[in-house]
Amino acid sequence: MLEKKGTILSVREDLKVFDCTIRDGGLVNNFHFSDEFVKAHYEMCIKAGVDYMEIGKNVSPTLMSEAEYGPWNFCKEEDIRRIVGENNTNLKIAVMSDIGRSLKEELRPKSESVVDMIRIATYIHQIPAAIELIEDAHAKGYETTVNIMAISKSFDDELNQVLELLAKTPVDVIYIADSFGSFYPEQIRDLTEKYLSFAEKSGKKVGIHAHNNLQLAYANTLEAMIYGASFLDVTVSGLGRGAGNCPLELLLGFLKNPKYNQMPVFEFIENHIVELEKKLDWGYSIPYMITGQLNEHPRAAMKARDEGDTKYREFYKNIHME
Amino acid sequence: MLEKKGTILSVREDLKVFDCTIRDGGLVNNFHFSDEFVKAHYEMCIKAGVDYMEIGKNVSPTLMSEAEYGPWNFCKEEDIRRIVGENNTNLKIAVMSDIGRSLKEELRPKSESVVDMIRIATYIHQIPAAIELIEDAHAKGYETTVNIMAISKSFDDELNQVLELLAKTPVDVIYIADSFGSFYPEQIRDLTEKYLSFAEKSGKKVGIHAHNNLQLAYANTLEAMIYGASFLDVTVSGLGRGAGNCPLELLLGFLKNPKYNQMPVFEFIENHIVELEKKLDWGYSIPYMITGQLNEHPRAAMKARDEGDTKYREFYKNIHME
Repeated sequence: MLEKKGTILSVREDLKVFDCTIRDGGLVNNFHFSDEFVKAHYEMCIKAGVDYMEIGKNVSPTLMSEAEYGPWNFCKEEDIRRIVGENNTNLKIAVMSDIGRSLKEELRPKSESVVDMIRIATYIHQIPAAIELIEDAHAKGYETTVNIMAISKSFDDELNQVLELLAKTPVDVIYIADSFGSFYPEQIRDLTEKYLSFAEKSGKKVGIHAHNNLQLAYANTLEAMIYGASFLDVTVSGLGRGAGNCPLELLLGFLKNPKYNQMPVFEFIENHIVELEKKLDWGYSIPYMITGQLNEHPRAAMKARDEGDTKYREFYKNIHME
Repeated sequence: MLEKKGTILSVREDLKVFDCTIRDGGLVNNFHFSDEFVKAHYEMCIKAGVDYMEIGKNVSPTLMSEAEYGPWNFCKEEDIRRIVGENNTNLKIAVMSDIGRSLKEELRPKSESVVDMIRIATYIHQIPAAIELIEDAHAKGYETTVNIMAISKSFDDELNQVLELLAKTPVDVIYIADSFGSFYPEQIRDLTEKYLSFAEKSGKKVGIHAHNNLQLAYANTLEAMIYGASFLDVTVSGLGRGAGNCPLELLLGFLKNPKYNQMPVFEFIENHIVELEKKLDWGYSIPYMITGQLNEHPRAAMKARDEGDTKYREFYKNIHME
């Protein structure tokens, strides 16, 4: 029987607030954030007591165009240092690696980097390649996480097999990633139980990365947290691809640990998000709800939003028959 | 130990989808919906399989101005019949009574009305007056509900006392109303258990009316439902005061009973909500989040939204020190 960890008023020291605004938000604007924006965001994270900040992806510049994508798709050491310097703070810096696009030959040892953590995003069929990246990053001195994507489409017991394999790696955190924003809290609870059963026996933590297609990103994050997940992914105002993520400001308003502080988040929103919302489209809307309910990738919904298409019946029929 | 009712794939025949778009939405525009809008909404409810439609409030025209408020604040019999005729459908019609504004002398017997249900909204200190209205409406032949408002501010065990009193009345449904949108799913679960413990022994049902200040309206509705609430309040696209309500389209996408149909809801949204969203402001935003987190009435947030005020730090400080 799964038990609650802590109560609604208690402080859980194991919790880590993980801000992925620049990385998941970068999927909305091809990582074209100004240095001023990223710097302000970094300083906000420090003041708000955020534990980790994911500053982008470390895709190889040999594989994607630096003309098309901004610097946070590549996260070169000099670009990161331009923002964080030596980062002599309590905030840890993370970057995300994509299978096939991030090359382990390009990953320098931790001793030569201000990056603290490498997060490996993987589909189930890429697990062997993910394990190579995990082992490489771990050997080079980084903290590591693995984010298994699209698990809502996994067949039969293959997720168990994946978790069995990952439990044997040196990875520090295994993430429940609700890629299509299709899970209900009941399912997140069951997934938390499953992930914990593999993670705890090998001394690993469990994380949650939720999307807001069904207006459940925050609820699902709370649900995973209550039952033992400790790494909680958030973005400022939910900024992220499609329906966006669990908002940082909502989570900080819930957590009782006095080290967290909402006020710097409000300041950042006032100064940077209010304007950005007029230019970029993200967050819950009917097309994202439909792809979430039908357990599909949000790409058709992103297209509908781009085109201002509000023919929702037709949209539903097209997705439903795909 | 509270047990789940049904599973994620089962049909629960006891569930009632209760659409309060016109009533709660009327709080956004002083009930100035056109007949065309209300008629289209009524027909949508029928086609979508909605069980109840709340068409407005039955405030006495002697107490509020018919110049200032549209017809759905008063719900005169002839106005309702203009929309629903004799309502020879499976959709039941409800209206809400406010303590002190709805007069029992003005409530005609059910035999002379197309209204099926009277919903009595009450604060805790008005309970004796609410019981008078319940008894009067019941005696006249109506189904009745009681919606106890602002319970997140109730002190000590006074909510238990209220439920004890209501269990002795002929009311059919007792509603958990999250007036300030401040409850978390864990708390909704405990409230559901509490309400059911009083309601079930006297043969009553429990309902849930959620607000979306914390992006939890849908999650809280699901939580109450899973643990036994059967009357589920929703509005199209969450249209309702402040942060709005649990969206009808999200709930219908979850429910497995084939009598429910999302497509008419999409049609109504395409034809009526897309335009309305350009004129009226409702739904989740930072000011509503702040009043929800601080367990306060949303009126200051409504003012901030009206004025386009995005000075969130100042807003927070003002509310926090009230």
